[in-house]
Amino acid sequence: MNYDLSQIPERAIKPRQKGLTMVMDKGLSLRQVEDFLEVSSPYTDIVKLGWATSYVTPNLKEKLAIYKSAGIPVYFGGTLFEAFYIRNQFEDYLRVLDKFGMEYAEVSDGSVEMESDVKCEFIHRLSKHVTVLSEVGSKDEAKIIPPYKWIKLMRMELEAGAWKVIGEAREGGNVGLFRSSGEVRQGLVEEILTEIPEENIIWEAPQKSQQVWFVKLVGANVNVGNIAPNEVISLETIRLGLRGDTFDHFLDK
Amino acid sequence: MNYDLSQIPERAIKPRQKGLTMVMDKGLSLRQVEDFLEVSSPYTDIVKLGWATSYVTPNLKEKLAIYKSAGIPVYFGGTLFEAFYIRNQFEDYLRVLDKFGMEYAEVSDGSVEMESDVKCEFIHRLSKHVTVLSEVGSKDEAKIIPPYKWIKLMRMELEAGAWKVIGEAREGGNVGLFRSSGEVRQGLVEEILTEIPEENIIWEAPQKSQQVWFVKLVGANVNVGNIAPNEVISLETIRLGLRGDTFDHFLDK
Amino acid sequence: MNYDLSQIPERAIKPRQKGLTMVMDKGLSLRQVEDFLEVSSPYTDIVKLGWATSYVTPNLKEKLAIYKSAGIPVYFGGTLFEAFYIRNQFEDYLRVLDKFGMEYAEVSDGSVEMESDVKCEFIHRLSKHVTVLSEVGSKDEAKIIPPYKWIKLMRMELEAGAWKVIGEAREGGNVGLFRSSGEVRQGLVEEILTEIPEENIIWEAPQKSQQVWFVKLVGANVNVGNIAPNEVISLETIRLGLRGDTFDHFLDK
Repeated sequence: MNYDLSQIPERAIKPRQKGLTMVMDKGLSLRQVEDFLEVSSPYTDIVKLGWATSYVTPNLKEKLAIYKSAGIPVYFGGTLFEAFYIRNQFEDYLRVLDKFGMEYAEVSDGSVEMESDVKCEFIHRLSKHVTVLSEVGSKDEAKIIPPYKWIKLMRMELEAGAWKVIGEAREGGNVGLFRSSGEVRQGLVEEILTEIPEENIIWEAPQKSQQVWFVKLVGANVNVGNIAPNEVISLETIRLGLRGDTFDHFLDK
Repeated sequence: MNYDLSQIPERAIKPRQKGLTMVMDKGLSLRQVEDFLEVSSPYTDIVKLGWATSYVTPNLKEKLAIYKSAGIPVYFGGTLFEAFYIRNQFEDYLRVLDKFGMEYAEVSDGSVEMESDVKCEFIHRLSKHVTVLSEVGSKDEAKIIPPYKWIKLMRMELEAGAWKVIGEAREGGNVGLFRSSGEVRQGLVEEILTEIPEENIIWEAPQKSQQVWFVKLVGANVNVGNIAPNEVISLETIRLGLRGDTFDHFLDK
Repeated sequence: MNYDLSQIPERAIKPRQKGLTMVMDKGLSLRQVEDFLEVSSPYTDIVKLGWATSYVTPNLKEKLAIYKSAGIPVYFGGTLFEAFYIRNQFEDYLRVLDKFGMEYAEVSDGSVEMESDVKCEFIHRLSKHVTVLSEVGSKDEAKIIPPYKWIKLMRMELEAGAWKVIGEAREGGNVGLFRSSGEVRQGLVEEILTEIPEENIIWEAPQKSQQVWFVKLVGANVNVGNIAPNEVISLETIRLGLRGDTFDHFLDK
């Protein structure tokens, strides 16, 4: 840190087991990746190449190499897994992971119908090759999953071999964990946390108010995701009680 | 593309006659233009220097040279034409186009009152020097133009020599084609499409939900505009059915 | 300017006494700072490193050097002052300002309770070392300060040694001067301007509609702040009547 302040909550340092920040890259140039890393590398634990953007971005191999040399794992968004799945091309997906040397992968069912045991089978199979993140929650805002089912799915997917389960919110932060207004489904999150250890969950929380809410509920070292590259510094100050929104939260009363 | 997926809609390739993406540059630095091109050049057909930003950006000549060497045509936003027009400086405008070697120009009346035959006369005159885009629709959200008049104006302007007509939406996507909430004037668009060939229209659609709506209505190769530089990759995935919003749209049922 | 247009309002040039643009840097990389300066240096009068972002950004010294060589003063956001104050570390804050060679500082009470005479004492003390900006208004949207009190506080703080007083709005533009919808508290601003000279106030106005409102009320050379780096060009066109929103405002009727 650039100077000393007392009463700053203790922050996990890399490689972190909790307090993870997952960042969404939806098409950065190589220089933009370097710029991002210059500022945010110490605070970034893992990067997602959003949904199937990796299909169209011309600089994929070079980009993966830059993240690799910075020691930051990268994975393709779950929608890419679903795109291969819905086309009966899962074997091709394995070859793509292999071709690009991916060490992490996401399994999700945000845009497809998939029985939970089928999903768990994919998690299980993939977990033999890569570290798996699995995502719970639909991208369809009309589709409300009750809390007991979130919990059941998360537990099953962790048991099937997922390293972390992700709570869905999309890039906009307006589905899954959140109402279409972006407001947190507070009761849902609290109920999940009674059953699933917080360190096993990454909460997608792209909006500032959502990040603030999770830091206040879980603490400085909550795992959050879908953070825009230029919002990682802001998030870090929210974690540390150094932005107005959490200014009082970590101070001795 | 970085890997193979089946059931991807056929995308026009450059130089495209339809499926155009028009991007708005509202003051990028030279390096930012290079970064943008590295990622989005294959998917970008034409760039607009938003409204009259070209008046104040210090790097204009160098920027035009970069776009030129990438083979991407550039034009000044229609508000610049209107700014010269309202000051009785149209002859000066021609000299500016000449001085900067512009090969495209926009004629619009979003902020001024202009009779349609006067506008068509400008389109006609300019079309002898440059390729003309003409824009229909007001920047004033209180000003509602009925569908039959949109159609009449578009037809007149195409006949006067416009290469494409643009449906107005501003940078925000909240006027012209859209309600102030950003919602599409669906009946308006559908009625226009019964009379004007889709390939002759560029729909300004800066918001993701608007892009999704047009891709679903017209197809992967709809012409859309006012796309932010860092949203071109996202748009391309929407066109290809590779983002949640259009995930099912192009799949065999 | 890149070409000539008549009826453009006269704009103050640097070093400006009025018509200031204060830009918020919330974690730019060094190259991003250079890119910003390439485009916006002529129109940027002062840069704020937002709230306490300077605590976590790894490139602080080098960044300050770049701004310095461009002749643009920089200061730490007021929340940093408050973070030192609430921890009884004000003397440490002075040492931080000294260590980084800061020539400007902000005093605010957006997130803490502070008696106005205490605040003025801090302004007074700091003004012996640096040029002081002081901020009026709470970050808490539930806390409404009546106009007469805004005026009283602004006057006291200017008398205590503040170079400018800042009207609070946050990065979002939804507190202080504005309703939570972002709408201007019009009566408040107009009443303040009957008592405090406009050149002594910097209005935080991060949203375009807010910038438009202030330019229409005060003129091209209004002082505004919390401008995002990539919105400075847009703001400059709004000041000059070269964007749709102020297109008519400066024309001879």
